[in-house]
Amino acid sequence: MSDAPVLLIYAHPYPDRSIANAELLTAVADLQGVRVRSLYDLYPTFDIDVSAEQAALRAASVVVWQHPLYWYSVPSLLKHWFEKVLVRGFAYGPEGNALWEKRCLWVVTTGGDEQAFGTHGMHGRPLHEFMPVVEQTALFCGMRWEEPLFVYAAHRLPPGELALAARAYRERLAALAQPRSDS
Amino acid sequence: MSDAPVLLIYAHPYPDRSIANAELLTAVADLQGVRVRSLYDLYPTFDIDVSAEQAALRAASVVVWQHPLYWYSVPSLLKHWFEKVLVRGFAYGPEGNALWEKRCLWVVTTGGDEQAFGTHGMHGRPLHEFMPVVEQTALFCGMRWEEPLFVYAAHRLPPGELALAARAYRERLAALAQPRSDS
Repeated sequence: MSDAPVLLIYAHPYPDRSIANAELLTAVADLQGVRVRSLYDLYPTFDIDVSAEQAALRAASVVVWQHPLYWYSVPSLLKHWFEKVLVRGFAYGPEGNALWEKRCLWVVTTGGDEQAFGTHGMHGRPLHEFMPVVEQTALFCGMRWEEPLFVYAAHRLPPGELALAARAYRERLAALAQPRSDS
Repeated sequence: MSDAPVLLIYAHPYPDRSIANAELLTAVADLQGVRVRSLYDLYPTFDIDVSAEQAALRAASVVVWQHPLYWYSVPSLLKHWFEKVLVRGFAYGPEGNALWEKRCLWVVTTGGDEQAFGTHGMHGRPLHEFMPVVEQTALFCGMRWEEPLFVYAAHRLPPGELALAARAYRERLAALAQPRSDS
Protein backbone atom coordinates (compact mmCIF):
# COMPACT_ATOMS: atom_id res chain seq x y z
CA MET A 1 0.00 0.00 0.00
CA SER A 2 1.10 3.49 -0.82
CA ASP A 3 2.09 6.01 1.86
CA ALA A 4 -0.57 8.33 0.50
CA PRO A 5 -3.51 6.18 -0.49
CA VAL A 6 -5.76 9.22 -0.89
CA LEU A 7 -5.01 11.64 -3.72
CA LEU A 8 -7.04 14.79 -3.28
CA ILE A 9 -7.32 16.82 -6.46
CA TYR A 10 -8.37 20.29 -5.39
CA ALA A 11 -9.74 22.61 -8.06
CA HIS A 12 -10.66 26.01 -6.74
CA PRO A 13 -10.20 28.69 -9.43
CA TYR A 14 -9.38 31.30 -6.78
CA PRO A 15 -7.76 29.33 -3.98
CA ASP A 16 -6.77 32.49 -2.08
CA ARG A 17 -10.35 33.69 -1.97
CA SER A 18 -11.93 30.45 -0.86
CA ILE A 19 -13.51 30.28 2.57
CA ALA A 20 -15.66 27.17 2.61
CA ASN A 21 -13.49 25.03 0.37
CA ALA A 22 -10.40 26.16 2.24
CA GLU A 23 -11.95 25.12 5.55
CA LEU A 24 -12.97 21.76 4.13
CA LEU A 25 -9.50 21.26 2.73
CA THR A 26 -7.81 22.23 5.99
CA ALA A 27 -9.97 19.71 7.80
CA VAL A 28 -8.49 16.82 5.83
CA ALA A 29 -5.10 17.94 4.54
CA ASP A 30 -3.22 16.81 7.65
CA LEU A 31 -4.76 13.34 7.71
CA GLN A 32 -2.22 10.61 7.40
CA GLY A 33 -2.33 9.13 3.94
CA VAL A 34 -3.83 12.17 2.22
CA ARG A 35 -1.90 13.97 -0.49
CA VAL A 36 -3.30 17.23 -1.88
CA ARG A 37 -2.68 18.62 -5.33
CA SER A 38 -4.16 22.08 -5.89
CA LEU A 39 -4.59 22.33 -9.62
CA TYR A 40 -5.01 26.11 -9.90
CA ASP A 41 -1.88 26.64 -7.82
CA LEU A 42 0.10 24.09 -9.82
CA TYR A 43 -1.12 25.05 -13.28
CA PRO A 44 -2.27 28.69 -13.46
CA THR A 45 -1.74 28.67 -17.22
CA PHE A 46 -3.39 25.29 -17.82
CA ASP A 47 -0.11 23.57 -18.78
CA ILE A 48 -0.73 20.36 -16.89
CA ASP A 49 2.23 18.06 -16.16
CA VAL A 50 0.57 14.88 -17.34
CA SER A 51 3.32 12.53 -16.14
CA ALA A 52 3.28 13.96 -12.65
CA GLU A 53 -0.49 13.70 -12.45
CA GLN A 54 -0.51 10.14 -13.73
CA ALA A 55 2.22 9.14 -11.27
CA ALA A 56 0.22 10.62 -8.41
CA LEU A 57 -2.85 8.70 -9.54
CA ARG A 58 -0.96 5.41 -9.80
CA ALA A 59 0.26 5.80 -6.21
CA ALA A 60 -3.24 6.29 -4.83
CA SER A 61 -6.06 3.92 -4.07
CA VAL A 62 -8.63 6.67 -3.52
CA VAL A 63 -9.14 9.72 -5.73
CA VAL A 64 -10.99 12.78 -4.42
CA TRP A 65 -12.20 15.58 -6.66
CA GLN A 66 -12.97 18.60 -4.47
CA HIS A 67 -14.15 21.87 -5.94
CA PRO A 68 -16.89 24.50 -6.01
CA LEU A 69 -19.56 23.84 -8.61
CA TYR A 70 -19.00 26.04 -11.66
CA TRP A 71 -21.78 26.08 -14.24
CA TYR A 72 -23.17 22.83 -12.89
CA SER A 73 -19.91 20.92 -13.27
CA VAL A 74 -16.20 20.88 -12.54
CA PRO A 75 -14.13 24.06 -13.02
CA SER A 76 -12.47 24.27 -16.41
CA LEU A 77 -8.98 23.33 -15.23
CA LEU A 78 -10.30 20.10 -13.70
CA LYS A 79 -12.13 19.41 -16.96
CA HIS A 80 -8.83 20.01 -18.74
CA TRP A 81 -7.18 17.61 -16.29
CA PHE A 82 -9.76 14.95 -17.20
CA GLU A 83 -8.93 15.44 -20.87
CA LYS A 84 -5.14 15.52 -20.57
CA VAL A 85 -4.55 13.02 -17.76
CA LEU A 86 -7.32 10.43 -18.15
CA VAL A 87 -6.25 9.37 -21.60
CA ARG A 88 -6.56 6.18 -23.61
CA GLY A 89 -3.86 3.66 -22.66
CA PHE A 90 -3.74 5.06 -19.13
CA ALA A 91 -7.32 5.38 -17.92
CA TYR A 92 -9.23 3.36 -20.51
CA GLY A 93 -8.80 1.35 -23.68
CA PRO A 94 -6.19 -1.35 -24.24
CA GLU A 95 -3.89 -1.55 -21.19
CA GLY A 96 -5.59 1.55 -19.85
CA ASN A 97 -6.25 0.14 -16.40
CA ALA A 98 -4.32 2.53 -14.13
CA LEU A 99 -7.43 3.62 -12.24
CA TRP A 100 -9.20 0.29 -12.14
CA GLU A 101 -10.94 -0.38 -8.80
CA LYS A 102 -9.73 2.84 -7.20
CA ARG A 103 -12.48 4.58 -5.26
CA CYS A 104 -13.58 8.03 -6.35
CA LEU A 105 -15.15 10.62 -4.05
CA TRP A 106 -16.70 13.80 -5.40
CA VAL A 107 -16.76 16.68 -2.90
CA VAL A 108 -18.60 19.67 -4.26
CA THR A 109 -19.70 22.95 -2.76
CA THR A 110 -22.45 25.09 -4.21
CA GLY A 111 -23.40 28.73 -3.96
CA GLY A 112 -27.10 27.91 -4.01
CA ASP A 113 -28.90 26.24 -1.15
CA GLU A 114 -30.72 22.95 -1.55
CA GLN A 115 -33.99 24.72 -2.44
CA ALA A 116 -32.28 26.45 -5.36
CA PHE A 117 -31.72 22.96 -6.76
CA GLY A 118 -35.39 22.05 -6.52
CA THR A 119 -37.94 21.93 -9.31
CA HIS A 120 -39.00 25.49 -8.58
CA GLY A 121 -35.54 26.73 -7.68
CA MET A 122 -33.28 28.86 -9.83
CA HIS A 123 -31.23 25.84 -10.89
CA GLY A 124 -34.28 23.84 -11.90
CA ARG A 125 -33.12 20.36 -10.86
CA PRO A 126 -31.66 18.46 -7.93
CA LEU A 127 -27.88 18.54 -7.85
CA HIS A 128 -27.65 14.80 -8.43
CA GLU A 129 -29.14 15.28 -11.90
CA PHE A 130 -25.97 17.13 -12.85
CA MET A 131 -23.85 14.27 -11.49
CA PRO A 132 -23.81 11.85 -14.45
CA VAL A 133 -21.06 13.78 -16.26
CA VAL A 134 -18.64 13.38 -13.37
CA GLU A 135 -19.82 9.96 -12.19
CA GLN A 136 -19.61 8.41 -15.64
CA THR A 137 -16.11 9.85 -16.12
CA ALA A 138 -15.04 7.90 -13.04
CA LEU A 139 -16.95 4.77 -14.02
CA PHE A 140 -15.56 4.76 -17.56
CA CYS A 141 -12.09 4.61 -16.01
CA GLY A 142 -13.13 1.60 -13.94
CA MET A 143 -13.25 3.51 -10.67
CA ARG A 144 -15.77 2.82 -7.91
CA TRP A 145 -18.08 5.75 -7.37
CA GLU A 146 -18.52 6.65 -3.71
CA GLU A 147 -21.55 8.50 -2.38
CA PRO A 148 -20.59 12.13 -3.07
CA LEU A 149 -20.37 14.85 -0.44
CA PHE A 150 -22.45 17.92 -1.27
CA VAL A 151 -22.07 21.10 0.77
CA TYR A 152 -24.82 23.52 -0.21
CA ALA A 153 -24.66 27.30 0.13
CA ALA A 154 -21.14 26.80 1.35
CA HIS A 155 -20.14 30.45 1.60
CA ARG A 156 -23.27 31.32 3.58
CA LEU A 157 -23.18 28.51 6.13
CA PRO A 158 -22.93 29.54 9.76
CA PRO A 159 -19.47 28.66 11.08
CA GLY A 160 -20.86 25.84 13.19
CA GLU A 161 -22.48 24.14 10.22
CA LEU A 162 -19.41 24.49 8.08
CA ALA A 163 -17.39 22.96 10.88
CA LEU A 164 -19.83 20.04 10.98
CA ALA A 165 -19.47 19.51 7.24
CA ALA A 166 -15.71 19.67 7.58
CA ARG A 167 -15.77 17.07 10.35
CA ALA A 168 -17.98 14.77 8.30
CA TYR A 169 -15.54 15.12 5.43
CA ARG A 170 -12.60 14.32 7.69
CA GLU A 171 -14.34 11.19 8.91
CA ARG A 172 -15.13 10.07 5.38
CA LEU A 173 -11.53 10.52 4.26
CA ALA A 174 -10.05 8.95 7.36
CA ALA A 175 -12.13 5.85 6.69
CA LEU A 176 -11.20 5.82 3.01
CA ALA A 177 -7.50 6.13 3.88
CA GLN A 178 -7.65 2.86 5.80
CA PRO A 179 -6.70 -0.35 4.03
CA ARG A 180 -9.85 -1.99 2.73
CA SER A 181 -11.14 -5.01 4.57
CA ASP A 182 -13.23 -6.20 1.63
CA SER A 183 -10.43 -6.79 -0.84
CA MET B 1 -31.53 42.86 -36.55
CA SER B 2 -27.85 42.03 -36.66
CA ASP B 3 -26.10 41.05 -39.90
CA ALA B 4 -25.02 37.81 -38.22
CA PRO B 5 -27.90 36.68 -36.06
CA VAL B 6 -26.29 33.27 -35.53
CA LEU B 7 -23.11 33.10 -33.48
CA LEU B 8 -21.54 29.66 -33.82
CA ILE B 9 -19.06 28.89 -31.06
CA TYR B 10 -16.97 26.02 -32.35
CA ALA B 11 -14.90 24.09 -29.83
CA HIS B 12 -12.88 21.31 -31.37
CA PRO B 13 -9.65 20.75 -29.39
CA TYR B 14 -7.86 19.60 -32.56
CA PRO B 15 -9.54 21.53 -35.36
CA ASP B 16 -7.00 20.37 -37.95
CA ARG B 17 -7.72 16.71 -37.22
CA SER B 18 -11.48 16.93 -37.26
CA ILE B 19 -13.38 15.15 -40.00
CA ALA B 20 -16.97 14.98 -38.90
CA ASN B 21 -17.09 18.30 -37.07
CA ALA B 22 -15.23 19.97 -39.93
CA GLU B 23 -17.79 18.68 -42.43
CA LEU B 24 -20.66 19.81 -40.23
CA LEU B 25 -19.06 23.22 -39.84
CA THR B 26 -18.41 23.56 -43.56
CA ALA B 27 -22.05 22.78 -44.22
CA VAL B 28 -23.19 25.87 -42.31
CA ALA B 29 -20.29 28.33 -42.28
CA ASP B 30 -21.26 29.97 -45.57
CA LEU B 31 -24.90 30.49 -44.60
CA GLN B 32 -25.88 34.11 -44.61
CA GLY B 33 -26.17 35.37 -41.08
CA VAL B 34 -23.83 32.81 -39.51
CA ARG B 35 -20.63 33.93 -37.82
CA VAL B 36 -18.17 31.27 -36.64
CA ARG B 37 -15.71 31.63 -33.78
CA SER B 38 -13.36 28.66 -33.41
CA LEU B 39 -12.26 28.80 -29.79
CA TYR B 40 -9.23 26.51 -30.04
CA ASP B 41 -7.91 28.50 -33.01
CA LEU B 42 -8.54 31.82 -31.27
CA TYR B 43 -7.30 30.86 -27.81
CA PRO B 44 -4.77 28.02 -27.91
CA THR B 45 -3.43 29.10 -24.51
CA PHE B 46 -6.86 29.60 -22.92
CA ASP B 47 -6.47 33.39 -22.70
CA ILE B 48 -9.99 34.25 -23.75
CA ASP B 49 -10.73 37.79 -24.92
CA VAL B 50 -13.82 38.29 -22.81
CA SER B 51 -14.85 41.63 -24.34
CA ALA B 52 -14.68 40.25 -27.87
CA GLU B 53 -16.72 37.22 -26.91
CA GLN B 54 -19.32 39.29 -25.11
CA ALA B 55 -19.60 41.68 -28.06
CA ALA B 56 -20.13 38.75 -30.41
CA LEU B 57 -22.84 37.41 -28.14
CA ARG B 58 -24.62 40.75 -27.91
CA ALA B 59 -24.77 40.98 -31.69
CA ALA B 60 -26.41 37.56 -32.07
CA SER B 61 -29.94 36.33 -31.57
CA VAL B 62 -29.00 32.65 -31.79
CA VAL B 63 -26.04 30.99 -30.06
CA VAL B 64 -24.74 27.62 -31.26
CA TRP B 65 -22.31 25.51 -29.26
CA GLN B 66 -20.79 22.92 -31.61
CA HIS B 67 -18.19 20.44 -30.40
CA PRO B 68 -17.27 16.81 -29.99
CA LEU B 69 -18.33 15.34 -26.65
CA TYR B 70 -15.33 15.16 -24.30
CA TRP B 71 -15.84 13.28 -21.07
CA TYR B 72 -19.59 13.59 -21.39
CA SER B 73 -19.55 17.36 -21.67
CA VAL B 74 -18.08 20.35 -23.43
CA PRO B 75 -14.31 20.50 -24.12
CA SER B 76 -12.36 22.33 -21.44
CA LEU B 77 -11.86 25.53 -23.41
CA LEU B 78 -15.61 25.88 -23.93
CA LYS B 79 -16.10 25.27 -20.21
CA HIS B 80 -13.54 28.00 -19.60
CA TRP B 81 -15.49 30.23 -21.98
CA PHE B 82 -18.64 29.61 -19.93
CA GLU B 83 -16.77 30.66 -16.80
CA LYS B 84 -15.03 33.73 -18.20
CA VAL B 85 -17.65 35.08 -20.62
CA LEU B 86 -20.99 34.19 -19.01
CA VAL B 87 -20.37 36.21 -15.90
CA ARG B 88 -22.58 37.96 -13.39
CA GLY B 89 -23.69 41.36 -14.64
CA PHE B 90 -23.51 40.16 -18.23
CA ALA B 91 -25.26 36.80 -18.38
CA TYR B 92 -27.10 36.71 -15.08
CA GLY B 93 -27.66 38.64 -11.87
CA PRO B 94 -28.50 42.33 -11.66
CA GLU B 95 -28.49 43.84 -15.16
CA GLY B 96 -27.09 40.56 -16.46
CA ASN B 97 -29.58 40.19 -19.27
CA ALA B 98 -27.34 40.18 -22.36
CA LEU B 99 -28.44 36.69 -23.42
CA TRP B 100 -32.07 36.95 -22.46
CA GLU B 101 -34.42 35.31 -24.98
CA LYS B 102 -31.64 34.35 -27.37
CA ARG B 103 -32.04 30.83 -28.67
CA CYS B 104 -29.35 28.27 -27.91
CA LEU B 105 -28.61 25.22 -30.04
CA TRP B 106 -26.27 22.48 -28.83
CA VAL B 107 -24.64 20.50 -31.65
CA VAL B 108 -22.61 17.62 -30.34
CA THR B 109 -20.81 14.73 -31.99
CA THR B 110 -19.89 11.55 -30.16
CA GLY B 111 -17.38 8.79 -30.72
CA GLY B 112 -19.78 6.16 -29.45
CA ASP B 113 -22.85 5.06 -31.36
CA GLU B 114 -26.34 5.32 -29.90
CA GLN B 115 -26.14 1.81 -28.41
CA ALA B 116 -23.04 2.82 -26.44
CA PHE B 117 -25.29 5.35 -24.71
CA GLY B 118 -27.84 2.72 -23.72
CA THR B 119 -28.29 1.12 -20.32
CA HIS B 120 -26.04 -1.77 -21.30
CA GLY B 121 -23.65 0.34 -23.36
CA MET B 122 -20.20 1.45 -22.33
CA HIS B 123 -21.45 4.92 -21.46
CA GLY B 124 -24.25 3.61 -19.29
CA ARG B 125 -26.90 6.23 -20.02
CA PRO B 126 -28.67 7.97 -22.87
CA LEU B 127 -26.86 11.06 -24.08
CA HIS B 128 -29.72 13.31 -22.98
CA GLU B 129 -28.99 12.40 -19.35
CA PHE B 130 -25.68 14.24 -19.69
CA MET B 131 -27.48 17.27 -21.11
CA PRO B 132 -28.62 19.09 -17.91
CA VAL B 133 -25.19 20.66 -17.34
CA VAL B 134 -25.23 22.41 -20.71
CA GLU B 135 -28.97 23.02 -20.91
CA GLN B 136 -29.16 24.60 -17.46
CA THR B 137 -26.18 26.84 -18.26
CA ALA B 138 -28.21 28.24 -21.16
CA LEU B 139 -31.43 28.45 -19.16
CA PHE B 140 -29.76 30.20 -16.23
CA CYS B 141 -28.70 32.92 -18.68
CA GLY B 142 -32.30 33.28 -19.84
CA MET B 143 -31.73 31.63 -23.21
CA ARG B 144 -34.28 29.45 -24.95
CA TRP B 145 -33.06 25.88 -25.27
CA GLU B 146 -33.59 24.43 -28.72
CA GLU B 147 -33.86 20.72 -29.39
CA PRO B 148 -30.18 19.73 -29.64
CA LEU B 149 -28.57 18.05 -32.62
CA PHE B 150 -26.74 14.82 -31.73
CA VAL B 151 -24.51 13.14 -34.30
CA TYR B 152 -23.49 9.74 -32.98
CA ALA B 153 -20.36 7.82 -33.97
CA ALA B 154 -19.49 10.82 -36.05
CA HIS B 155 -16.03 9.69 -37.19
CA ARG B 156 -17.34 6.30 -38.30
CA LEU B 157 -20.38 7.42 -40.25
CA PRO B 158 -20.48 6.48 -43.92
CA PRO B 159 -19.98 9.62 -46.01
CA GLY B 160 -23.60 9.58 -47.14
CA GLU B 161 -24.90 9.61 -43.59
CA LEU B 162 -22.55 12.35 -42.51
CA ALA B 163 -23.71 14.39 -45.50
CA LEU B 164 -27.32 13.85 -44.40
CA ALA B 165 -26.50 15.06 -40.90
CA ALA B 166 -24.70 18.06 -42.35
CA ARG B 167 -27.72 18.90 -44.49
CA ALA B 168 -30.06 18.62 -41.54
CA TYR B 169 -27.78 20.96 -39.59
CA ARG B 170 -27.75 23.45 -42.46
CA GLU B 171 -31.53 23.44 -42.59
CA ARG B 172 -31.79 23.96 -38.83
CA LEU B 173 -29.40 26.91 -38.91
CA ALA B 174 -30.92 28.46 -42.01
CA ALA B 175 -34.29 28.45 -40.25
CA LEU B 176 -32.80 29.87 -37.05
CA ALA B 177 -31.05 32.63 -39.00
CA GLN B 178 -34.43 33.92 -40.21
CA PRO B 179 -36.13 36.70 -38.31
CA ARG B 180 -38.60 35.17 -35.89
CA SER B 181 -42.25 35.41 -36.76
CA ASP B 182 -43.37 34.74 -33.20
CA SER B 183 -41.91 37.78 -31.59
